[in-house]
Amino acid sequence: MDIPALLTSAGMNIGISVGMFSLYSILRKQPLNVKVYFGQRVSQGRTRNETLCFERFVPSASWILKAWEATEEDIFASGGIDAVVFLRIVIFSIRIFSIAAILCTFLVLPLNYFGQGMERVIDSNAMDLLTIGNVREGSRWLWAHCFTLYIISGCACTLLYYEYKNVARMRLEQVNRFPARPSNFTVLVRGVPWCAVESYNESVGKFFGNYYASSYIAHQIVYRSGAVQTIMEDAEMMYNLVTAAPAKPCEPNADRCGLCGERSNSFKATSSESETETKNRKIEDELREKECEAALVFFRSRYDALVVSHTIQSADPMLWVTELAPEPKDVFWQNLCVPFNLLWIRKISVFIASIVFSVLFLLPTTFVQGLMKIEYLQSVFPWLRGLSRRSYYVNLITGYLPSLVLTVFLIIVPPTMMLFSTLEGAVSRSTRKRSACVKVLIFMFWNVYFSNILSGSWIERMGKLTVTSPRDMITLLAELIPRQASFFMTYVMTSGWSGLGCELLQPVGLLGNWLFKCVLQKEEEFCRPVTFSYHTEVSRVLLFGLLGFTFCILAPLILPFLLVYFFFAFLVYRNQIMNVYFVKYQTDGSYWPLAHNATIFSLILTQVVAAVLFGMKKSSSASTFTIPLIILTALFNVFCKNRFLPVFKNRAAKVLIEMDRDDERSGKLEEILEKLTTAYNQFELCGVEPPGKEEKPKKGSNGSLEDLAIVKTGSPSAEVVVNGGSPPAEVVVKSGSPSAELPPPPPPPPEPEPNIVSIN
Amino acid sequence: MDIPALLTSAGMNIGISVGMFSLYSILRKQPLNVKVYFGQRVSQGRTRNETLCFERFVPSASWILKAWEATEEDIFASGGIDAVVFLRIVIFSIRIFSIAAILCTFLVLPLNYFGQGMERVIDSNAMDLLTIGNVREGSRWLWAHCFTLYIISGCACTLLYYEYKNVARMRLEQVNRFPARPSNFTVLVRGVPWCAVESYNESVGKFFGNYYASSYIAHQIVYRSGAVQTIMEDAEMMYNLVTAAPAKPCEPNADRCGLCGERSNSFKATSSESETETKNRKIEDELREKECEAALVFFRSRYDALVVSHTIQSADPMLWVTELAPEPKDVFWQNLCVPFNLLWIRKISVFIASIVFSVLFLLPTTFVQGLMKIEYLQSVFPWLRGLSRRSYYVNLITGYLPSLVLTVFLIIVPPTMMLFSTLEGAVSRSTRKRSACVKVLIFMFWNVYFSNILSGSWIERMGKLTVTSPRDMITLLAELIPRQASFFMTYVMTSGWSGLGCELLQPVGLLGNWLFKCVLQKEEEFCRPVTFSYHTEVSRVLLFGLLGFTFCILAPLILPFLLVYFFFAFLVYRNQIMNVYFVKYQTDGSYWPLAHNATIFSLILTQVVAAVLFGMKKSSSASTFTIPLIILTALFNVFCKNRFLPVFKNRAAKVLIEMDRDDERSGKLEEILEKLTTAYNQFELCGVEPPGKEEKPKKGSNGSLEDLAIVKTGSPSAEVVVNGGSPPAEVVVKSGSPSAELPPPPPPPPEPEPNIVSIN
Repeated sequence: MDIPALLTSAGMNIGISVGMFSLYSILRKQPLNVKVYFGQRVSQGRTRNETLCFERFVPSASWILKAWEATEEDIFASGGIDAVVFLRIVIFSIRIFSIAAILCTFLVLPLNYFGQGMERVIDSNAMDLLTIGNVREGSRWLWAHCFTLYIISGCACTLLYYEYKNVARMRLEQVNRFPARPSNFTVLVRGVPWCAVESYNESVGKFFGNYYASSYIAHQIVYRSGAVQTIMEDAEMMYNLVTAAPAKPCEPNADRCGLCGERSNSFKATSSESETETKNRKIEDELREKECEAALVFFRSRYDALVVSHTIQSADPMLWVTELAPEPKDVFWQNLCVPFNLLWIRKISVFIASIVFSVLFLLPTTFVQGLMKIEYLQSVFPWLRGLSRRSYYVNLITGYLPSLVLTVFLIIVPPTMMLFSTLEGAVSRSTRKRSACVKVLIFMFWNVYFSNILSGSWIERMGKLTVTSPRDMITLLAELIPRQASFFMTYVMTSGWSGLGCELLQPVGLLGNWLFKCVLQKEEEFCRPVTFSYHTEVSRVLLFGLLGFTFCILAPLILPFLLVYFFFAFLVYRNQIMNVYFVKYQTDGSYWPLAHNATIFSLILTQVVAAVLFGMKKSSSASTFTIPLIILTALFNVFCKNRFLPVFKNRAAKVLIEMDRDDERSGKLEEILEKLTTAYNQFELCGVEPPGKEEKPKKGSNGSLEDLAIVKTGSPSAEVVVNGGSPPAEVVVKSGSPSAELPPPPPPPPEPEPNIVSIN
Repeated sequence: MDIPALLTSAGMNIGISVGMFSLYSILRKQPLNVKVYFGQRVSQGRTRNETLCFERFVPSASWILKAWEATEEDIFASGGIDAVVFLRIVIFSIRIFSIAAILCTFLVLPLNYFGQGMERVIDSNAMDLLTIGNVREGSRWLWAHCFTLYIISGCACTLLYYEYKNVARMRLEQVNRFPARPSNFTVLVRGVPWCAVESYNESVGKFFGNYYASSYIAHQIVYRSGAVQTIMEDAEMMYNLVTAAPAKPCEPNADRCGLCGERSNSFKATSSESETETKNRKIEDELREKECEAALVFFRSRYDALVVSHTIQSADPMLWVTELAPEPKDVFWQNLCVPFNLLWIRKISVFIASIVFSVLFLLPTTFVQGLMKIEYLQSVFPWLRGLSRRSYYVNLITGYLPSLVLTVFLIIVPPTMMLFSTLEGAVSRSTRKRSACVKVLIFMFWNVYFSNILSGSWIERMGKLTVTSPRDMITLLAELIPRQASFFMTYVMTSGWSGLGCELLQPVGLLGNWLFKCVLQKEEEFCRPVTFSYHTEVSRVLLFGLLGFTFCILAPLILPFLLVYFFFAFLVYRNQIMNVYFVKYQTDGSYWPLAHNATIFSLILTQVVAAVLFGMKKSSSASTFTIPLIILTALFNVFCKNRFLPVFKNRAAKVLIEMDRDDERSGKLEEILEKLTTAYNQFELCGVEPPGKEEKPKKGSNGSLEDLAIVKTGSPSAEVVVNGGSPPAEVVVKSGSPSAELPPPPPPPPEPEPNIVSIN
């Protein structure tokens, strides 16, 4: 790529970005779009009325100021710890690449330009003169590159250490910040063994009642996905039957926690009529069939739950598998029913599918590089020569189009990886998103970075390139990375700069909203607040980090482009996190170890490529001098892994025991335990609308099916005795537990955001 | 290598082996050698008197019969679970290679011989005609090889599954078999934080007394290695001081568990004299300095200990690191004092040292291959040509010498790896040996197998061989493995057959014993019973397994040699385990997962090499048909990893809870807990002879220093009040614990095997 093409691309992208930023600053002031641009605020009831005035139609930068002025506490309040960690990744990038930009602009860039290594090469273009390729072989100037690499690596490791420490501290504080989280007291059990004489429900009750008698409170069986709706229908049918029996003042009754809870039957009635009893038993049997081999088990203290989640329960490690449960809103119910012993097959299948997907993606990548290297293709396809007469088209095709095409193709990657993570069997939305993030990241590193570099070179050599070993690969990278700098500059502009504009504008939400309100004139909302796409954005930022590190001493001209991106990303994401996105679940900072590993990988790749390049430039002393740096970086990584990673994998017993004691002393524990058994409501949390809610107001308000389906704690269930085959109540809610001793808990408070769902 | 050289080697080895076996059958009957050949029986007091008769000097096979007739229970009684697992590895090898031998002899070998692929090759020799190299390119006969590979892989996986299941069951039974193991109740704590105002001892007591009030019984600080002797000297000095004070009926007193136990001072006296007190305080201060940041903490139940060992204690994961303690005799005391935060540096250093050692070992390997390929060397070194006139020498040099030289060089590997594992910081002898086993195994696979194959080829091509990628490597292996078959046949004979003879004869013990008794006329024993060298023998058997799998369809002639080895190994090791070796510690079957992984590696390598070879022989359909087999084998491995491996990493909560309950019901628990706090005696277990024991009988028998140093529970310590700065007794032995409530435990029973030490 030559300079005109790069300038064309820069012009296009700057124009588009400035346009989108301006448009956003106008559109955000329109009342029509308030749900698109202030979804979070709307969901919290913090809306505002704008009067129709001239200012509403003038672009302004007030949002930038607000985003700049927000403190970390504001971000934490709006976006939780994950948002803070994400912005820490951006801040880390800004810091390290500012240092790198200063060093490289004043030291490396002049040396590259005056390096005189390329006078002999005929097809060199102006861009390549600024890369390390222009430094003469055996030049002493390479020591400056080596020195710069040392400083950048040192700064990066220092910054990484403090950030890791900081994030680890924040994660530890999370436990204290949310002491009443139900997940602290709950263990998810999978692989409940099948038993011919007992239902899963009874097995779980017996097992934990027996072995954890002092700490076990209650449990809640998980029903098969799709079964929830059927259960509701059955319940409705029974309700009809019960209310149709006029002889007695018969009242529908469900035992505590109802359908989604501790008993295998959805509800029981006192009707003495044999017909009702038969149907009742039939439904009970049907329900038993719909139980999954998974359950949520509640414990008396955080430490007890931790202990159960950390030990192997049974001699067969595929049975009674325990782990700490996710938060209620974080649970991904449909995956809880996946049999535990099939998980490894799913994981392997997804692994193979990911590889196939990556391989298939080589086609668009090669096509993109083909567009860029159009002069090479012209020799094969002569009809392309007509293009070269019109230089503007050529500049557009080689400068702007390739990165645009790649960016468009990449849009399908995050949803695909999300699908893969779902199929893999993640039990919570947060782990699913994090797992998707890992997949997207690896995909980006491989398919955007390596395969672009390699396929570009493959086209240049007309398919004669063969890479058979890691050593070949490194040598090739050292040779090719500087030559691909201009493509990645345009990629940073297209995917980064214009991407930020898109992020601000939210085109899908905007158009949908406009279509619903203005064209279709519908009442309901098109767009509901969505959760932040960490899996897309974290991997994009880390990919740009990889570009920054690997190009910084080889082709430093990319750094200003990256810095502009990171700076605006900082502002844009702050704004979006505070206004648009809704926090439904958190990973408690689990994205940081990922970012750390990706950065260490980038650093070591940079160092290895630099060492090889120094060797190729016949400066073997500089090359040898780089090797200790690689070893030191690897050691630093091992140190961090030992020092900080356990915090992200486990919880400290000391902290939990102290919290338990504090709560017990202050009496808060009973309050927490009361709410605990009703916290995980498969019906509500699955988003199933109880059938009696809106469509059937005829059922009467007091004994409505909604009450029946969710929790029926206020009903006089104690007086109603049923001679079913189910075990007595102490199996399910342990006698002696606070929730059994205390009066039944009040019905759960109404959800604060009843309409909010995640589109991920 | 040609057939005469192979026959020379076979003749030499058969002669040597038969000689050693016969010699053994005579020597074992001599009373002089009873401690060499029946060390285990002697240590158990089961000796027998042989009368001088003619039979004592006639070789006999009675030991073979006895070894054959022994049941698995006998082996378990003599050698524990590890011996059983080791013999299961041998039995697995016998089974799978019998199947392979039958298939390959009747199907593969004839096809290879009549393959007609080598008529064009000039330098082929008779041995190569029996390898797959003789099959024509594109021949349909390769399908027979592919079919054989499928059957062998299927049988191997089936056998592996049942063996793994079996070993996992045995491991689970171990817990029930030894319910009173102190290690079940004990947790090793490392990384105790340093505190200016408290000793480590006090910190540990406070921490566990606070957070585990209901389950913590007592703890025992670990003293610095080398400090134990000093403590003994101090104690002796104090004893002298105390006994020299005549005013009061002063009696030496140590608090419970004495020096190695719960108090930081080795003992305290009631002497009111200020001089004694000053010295006492001085010694106390000195002792405090000798404390390590590690301690053994005792808990009331197995489940409590498991729970503590499985949770992270502190928010800083480098502090209060817990793991289940090893058995008392298994503890490797000197490594307990290695600061926990230095362990990762040690591990990395050992990793680097292992690589360097492996690289250095390429020299002897290349030398060995140089001997074998002497005809190639003759072109470089003309003076070697003189040798070829005497064909017997050539046969000896190319046939027998190479494998002998390699075997001799390999003798230094196990001790080196043991040293590495010691430096790595293993806290128990069993984990140290297992870790050494892993290292030896990797070393053997790499330095015996791969580097012999590659260096042999390197010499053939006069140093022109370059391997740059895994793909090159696989292609090379496919080409080279059949050509190295004859070398490995001689290696199996030298290292295997003659190795078994050496194992039987125990030349070091025999010569040493003879030298001590007959030449030096010394009274004491030269050889004490030693523990079995699993790290050497397991890796040897697994290396032969690798040879068997990779050669079975490529050059099946090696299989009979291997089968002979495995069959005699079965007999010899049974005999040795029952008679010679002493069990000091066990890994509870941890060698099986290692054997499983090594076998899976061998299988997959075989399949990959076969697939590449089929491709090279232009039978691409057979090559493609092998790929599903590779995937299936990998899937089988993942399945086994999920199904069985957790049993080897953790203990099941259910089992432990049930054992705890049974013990509590039957009253055994109190008995166990009584013995618990005296089980870990750093003095006794370090092998330090208490100074008052033999050398100083003048101290008097009743108040001897030995009693003082080890346990002084019978003394009226409650009456003796000392105003030291140490915390009151309830910090150390928790009040309310059975050991505090019950009368003090009796002094520990005398060690049954006082003289037995391990030479490893």
